[in-house]
Amino acid sequence: MANLLVDERDVQFTLYEQLNVEELCRAEKFSEQSRETFDMVIDAAQKLAENKLWPANADGDRVGVTLESGQAKVPESYHNAYKHFCEDGWMGISVDPEYDGQGLPIALCCAANEFFLAANLAFMAYPGLAVGAARIIQKFGSEEQRSTYMEKMYSGEWGGTMCLTEPQAGSDVGAIRTRAKRNSDGSFSIVGNKVFITGGDHDLTENIVHLVLARIEGAPGGTKGISIFIVPKKTLENGCLVDNDVTTVAVEKKLGLHGSATCALNFGEQDQCKGYLIGEENMGMPIMFHMMNEARLGVALHGLSQASAAYMHSVRYTQERIQGSDFLRIRDPDAPRVPIIEHPDVRRMLMWMKSATEGMRSLIYFVGYCEDLATTASDKTEASKHQGMVDLLIPVCKAWSSDMSFRVTEMAIQIHGGYGYCQEYPIEQFLRDVKITSIYEGTNGIQALDLVGRKLSSNQGALFKTFMEMTEADLARFRKNPRLVRAVANLTQARSKLFETTLHLAQKGMSGELAIPVLYATPYQELFGDVSVGHLLLWQADIADRKLQEIFDKANAHTPESQLEILNQNYDAAFYKGKIVAAEFFCNFTLSLAPGKAQAITNGDISLVEMPNRCFAKT
Amino acid sequence: MANLLVDERDVQFTLYEQLNVEELCRAEKFSEQSRETFDMVIDAAQKLAENKLWPANADGDRVGVTLESGQAKVPESYHNAYKHFCEDGWMGISVDPEYDGQGLPIALCCAANEFFLAANLAFMAYPGLAVGAARIIQKFGSEEQRSTYMEKMYSGEWGGTMCLTEPQAGSDVGAIRTRAKRNSDGSFSIVGNKVFITGGDHDLTENIVHLVLARIEGAPGGTKGISIFIVPKKTLENGCLVDNDVTTVAVEKKLGLHGSATCALNFGEQDQCKGYLIGEENMGMPIMFHMMNEARLGVALHGLSQASAAYMHSVRYTQERIQGSDFLRIRDPDAPRVPIIEHPDVRRMLMWMKSATEGMRSLIYFVGYCEDLATTASDKTEASKHQGMVDLLIPVCKAWSSDMSFRVTEMAIQIHGGYGYCQEYPIEQFLRDVKITSIYEGTNGIQALDLVGRKLSSNQGALFKTFMEMTEADLARFRKNPRLVRAVANLTQARSKLFETTLHLAQKGMSGELAIPVLYATPYQELFGDVSVGHLLLWQADIADRKLQEIFDKANAHTPESQLEILNQNYDAAFYKGKIVAAEFFCNFTLSLAPGKAQAITNGDISLVEMPNRCFAKT
Repeated sequence: MANLLVDERDVQFTLYEQLNVEELCRAEKFSEQSRETFDMVIDAAQKLAENKLWPANADGDRVGVTLESGQAKVPESYHNAYKHFCEDGWMGISVDPEYDGQGLPIALCCAANEFFLAANLAFMAYPGLAVGAARIIQKFGSEEQRSTYMEKMYSGEWGGTMCLTEPQAGSDVGAIRTRAKRNSDGSFSIVGNKVFITGGDHDLTENIVHLVLARIEGAPGGTKGISIFIVPKKTLENGCLVDNDVTTVAVEKKLGLHGSATCALNFGEQDQCKGYLIGEENMGMPIMFHMMNEARLGVALHGLSQASAAYMHSVRYTQERIQGSDFLRIRDPDAPRVPIIEHPDVRRMLMWMKSATEGMRSLIYFVGYCEDLATTASDKTEASKHQGMVDLLIPVCKAWSSDMSFRVTEMAIQIHGGYGYCQEYPIEQFLRDVKITSIYEGTNGIQALDLVGRKLSSNQGALFKTFMEMTEADLARFRKNPRLVRAVANLTQARSKLFETTLHLAQKGMSGELAIPVLYATPYQELFGDVSVGHLLLWQADIADRKLQEIFDKANAHTPESQLEILNQNYDAAFYKGKIVAAEFFCNFTLSLAPGKAQAITNGDISLVEMPNRCFAKT
Repeated sequence: MANLLVDERDVQFTLYEQLNVEELCRAEKFSEQSRETFDMVIDAAQKLAENKLWPANADGDRVGVTLESGQAKVPESYHNAYKHFCEDGWMGISVDPEYDGQGLPIALCCAANEFFLAANLAFMAYPGLAVGAARIIQKFGSEEQRSTYMEKMYSGEWGGTMCLTEPQAGSDVGAIRTRAKRNSDGSFSIVGNKVFITGGDHDLTENIVHLVLARIEGAPGGTKGISIFIVPKKTLENGCLVDNDVTTVAVEKKLGLHGSATCALNFGEQDQCKGYLIGEENMGMPIMFHMMNEARLGVALHGLSQASAAYMHSVRYTQERIQGSDFLRIRDPDAPRVPIIEHPDVRRMLMWMKSATEGMRSLIYFVGYCEDLATTASDKTEASKHQGMVDLLIPVCKAWSSDMSFRVTEMAIQIHGGYGYCQEYPIEQFLRDVKITSIYEGTNGIQALDLVGRKLSSNQGALFKTFMEMTEADLARFRKNPRLVRAVANLTQARSKLFETTLHLAQKGMSGELAIPVLYATPYQELFGDVSVGHLLLWQADIADRKLQEIFDKANAHTPESQLEILNQNYDAAFYKGKIVAAEFFCNFTLSLAPGKAQAITNGDISLVEMPNRCFAKT
C-alpha cells in the first residue's frame, strides 16, 4: 500500500520527467551525485517520514508544548523522531560536503523535505530552524563562530532560532527595540523582548543558538541600524554550559502547530546576556535578506506538504466511503451505493485539489531547480538569469502555495464531511497547521509588495522580461500539441492579461500614483501565481501527453475503449492521463478567471483608500 | 463604545432602509408589532449577546463538553447564559403567540439571532435545536404530543434534537438502518445508532426530546420508507422522569464548536426505548423537508454571524495596531508609524470582508423577509411567488454564506497576523467554529444538487424566471443612477452570464447528459450566489447613494473637500459612503469573474468523470 503523505510518482515525474534534475550531475558541484543517489534519498526520506515522524504528528498536536519552571518541553514522541532524524544524517542533506553535509541539489532537498513536512510539520520546525540559523553562521560568521556553533547545529546537537519579531515590530522589522551594548571583551550585552520565536525553547537539545536582531547603541534608526548577533541560550565556560540570561516567558497557545514551541523570550533580564556580532555592524538586514529566498521557499514547501497529505488522504477516503446518490438513482432507481469517488461533485473537488497541489509542487521544485542552475551555470549571464527567475518567483511561490494549500485542506474537510471536522481523522489538523504559512516569513501581503515594489522594477523589469520569454518559448512548444488546444488558449490569454496588468501597475508606479500598485499588489500576485502554475502544469501535460500517446501507439490502442483498457492496466498511462486532465481542469477553472482578475486590477478605483476609516464600521 | 459582534447600523439599514420590514405590520399577522417593538427586540438581543453569551464563548471553547458516566456536561458558563436566555423569553421570538411566543417576523428573528450567534455559536445550538424540533411537533404532532412536549421545549425546560445521520448514512439519508417495531400500546420500540447529533446529550435541561428518523418494520427501502418519531431521553411515568434506554456513547472531539455536544447515541440497547410516531407512517422525509428551509436559513445565519464578529474585530484591531510601512516611507522616509487600517492592502482585505459580510446579511434577511411576505400576502399568486423566491434562494443562501464566511474568518486571521493564529485573540475560534456550516444541514454539494436538480426545474423553471424578472426590474432602477454605472455594468453582464449558464445546464439535463449539470452544480451555485449578492449590494448602494446625495445637497457640499468634511462629521454619511464603496468593490472584484466562471461551466468537459479512479493517485 502506497503512502498517504506524498504522491511519489508525481515527485519522480516532476524531478526527472519535467525538470531532468539528473542533468545537474554533469556539473562539478554535483559530480558525486547520480540518479541512483537521488532515488535512494527519496526512498529513505519516505520511510523515515512514515515510520518515525508521522506517528508523532497527531500525538504532538494533542500533547502540545508545556512550559515547566521556565523550560519548554516538547511532546515526548518528538524525542525519538529527532534522534532518528539526526542519526540518519537528515540535518545535513543540503549542507556542503566540506561541512560534512550531503550537498544535494535544492530541488532534491525539496522532495525529501516534502515527505518530512507532510508527515509532521510542527516537528520539522526544530531541525529546519537549526539548519537555517547555522547556514547564516556558515556564510557570515567568523572561523571561530563556525567551529563553536555551526558544526554542533548541523549535527543536531544544538538547536537554532531566528529572533526578529517584537511585540511592536512585526511586518515593520525596522521598529525593533532590542539593544546591544559593546563589552570590553568584544562581545555585546543584549537586552530586549522577542515574540513568536519558533523553537525559541525546547528540550530536544542541550543548547539553542539564537540569532537575534538588535540595535547597537548609537546605530541609526529603522532597518539601517540593525545588526545580527549569535546569542546562545547557554555559553560554554570551562567546558560547561552555563545560562546566558535568556528567559522563556511564554509559549503561545495557537490554532495549530501545537508541537512547535512558539516562544516569547526575554534577553538580558539580569543584564547578563552575551551576544556575538555576526559580520559587520548594521548589516543585520542584508544578512537576513540573504537567507530570505531559502526561508520563503521553505514556507512554500510547508504549504505544499499539508496540501499533499490532505489530498492523498482524500483520495483514499473517497475510495473507502460508501454512499448512494440521487444522481446515480436518476439513471437507475436501484443504483448501488458506491465509493464517493464515483460522485461527480466529489471528483471535481479531488481534481481541484490535485491540480493545485501538483501545480505548487512543480512551482516549488522548479524554483529550487533554478537555484541549482544558478549555482552550477558555466557562465555568469546564465547564472544571473536563473537567479533572476528565483528572485522573481519566490514571493509568488510563497504566497500562492500558502494560500492555496489552505484551500486544499479546507476542501479535504469538505470531502470528509462531518468526519473531516472531527479529530478522529487527521484532516482538521492539516488545516490548522497550514494556516500559519500565509503569515510567517513575511505575510503574503509583504510578499506582494516585494513582488510589485522590488522584483518587477529590479533591473528595469529584466526579471519579468525573462519570465515572459520563457513562457512564450514554452507556449510555442505546447501549441504544436493538437490535443491541448483549449488549455493552451486559456494560458495564452491569461499570460497576456498578466502582461497588460504588469504594464499598468508599472506605469502607475512610475507616474507616482503609488496607491494603485500597493492596493492591487495582492490580487496581482495571485494572478501571477495562476499564470506561473498554469504554465508549469501545461508543461507537464505536454510531456505526459506525448508519453501517453507512445504507450497507446505501442499497444496499437486507437479507440476510446482500447485506450480505457490501457488506462486500467498500465499505471503509468493512468498517471499521465491524470496529469493531462489536471492541467486542463486548472486552465479551465482558474485561468478562465484571468481576464476578470485583470479587469478588477486595472479598474484602478482607489475610493477605498480615500474614504475615511469610519466608513468601514463604527467599533 | 459600539459592540464588536454585529454592525447594528447595517442591521437597521438592511431591515428598514432596504427591506422596509415595518410594512409587514400592516398585515393581520403582525398587526400587534411595530417599528418600536422591533427596535426594542434588537436592542435587548444585543445586550444579552454581549453581556451573557459572549463571556461564555472563549470559555466554552477551552472547557468543552465532557462525558461523565454516560452524561454529557456542558461548560459551566453555559448554565448562566441558558438561564437568562430562557427567562428573557428568547426561545419564543419566532413562535406563534397562540403558543406563548412573540410571533416576530422571520426577518426580525434573523437580526436578533445574528447577535446571539455572533456572541456564541456553540451555545446557540441548544436553544436552536430545541425550537426547531418543537416546531415539527407543533406542525405535525398530535394534540397530546404538543401538550406533552412542545410547550416544555418552547419554554426551554426540555431540550430537543434532530437524529438523522448514522455512521453509514450521511448525505445518503435513505440508507438509515434504525428500526421501529410497533408495540401494542401504539408506541414503537426504537433500535439503532445515530451519530453527529447536535445537542444529543447535555445537562442544561432535565430532559431532551429526540426526533428520530427510523424505518418501521416492513416499510419500503430508501427514503420512501422512513418515519419520524418522538423519542424522549426520559419518559414521564407517574409524574416521574425515567430513562428511556437512550445511551450517549461518545461526544466527538471537533475542530470547533467545542461547547456544543456532538453525540453518538444508541437507541434501545436494552430494547426498552419507546418512540411515538409523528404524523403518518413513512412520512418522515416530507416532514423533515418541511423544516428544511428554516434550518438552512439558520445555518446561513450561523455563517454570517461568525463573519460579522470576525469583521468587527478586524476593524477594531486595525485601528489599534500600529506599524510603519515601506509604502508610506517611499513618499516620506520619515513617515510616522500608523494604525494598519491606513495601509492599502489592509483596507483591501477589510473591504472584501465588509462586502461579503454585508452581502450575506442582505441575502439572508431578504430570504427571511420573502418568507414573511409569503405568509402575509393577500392573494395566493403573490404568496406562491414569494415562497418560490425562498425555495430557489435557500440553497444558494446556505452555501454561499457558509463558504464565504469561512473566507472572511480566514482573512481576519491574515489581518491579525501572528496574533490571529493565537488563542489570545478570538479570531482563530471564529474560523474553527464556522467551518462546520458548509457541512451540516446538507453539505454545500447537496445544496447545489438541490438547486440544479430540483429548484431550477421546478414548475418548468418558474422560480428562476421570477428571479430574472425581479433582478431586471431592479437593474432598470439602478441604471438611472449615473454614479453607479460601472457597477451596474458588472451586474448586468454577470446576470446575463448566469442566464446563459442556466440555460446550458437545463438543456444538458433535458438531453440526458446528466453528468454535466451534476459536475458543474457547485460552480454554478457559486455564480448564482455572486449574482444574488451583487444584486442586493447594488440595491443597497442605490439607496445609500440617494441618501448621501441628499445629505450633501442639504449641506450644500459639492466639492470633494466639502464632501469629505461631511463624511468626517456625519456618521450616517460615512456609513452610506461605505455601503457604496463596498458594492462597487464587490462588483469589481467578484462580478468581474462571472464571464470566466460561466465559461468554465459551459466548457462542458467531463473527462474527469470518465477517467478511471486511479488517475487521481495511487494510495
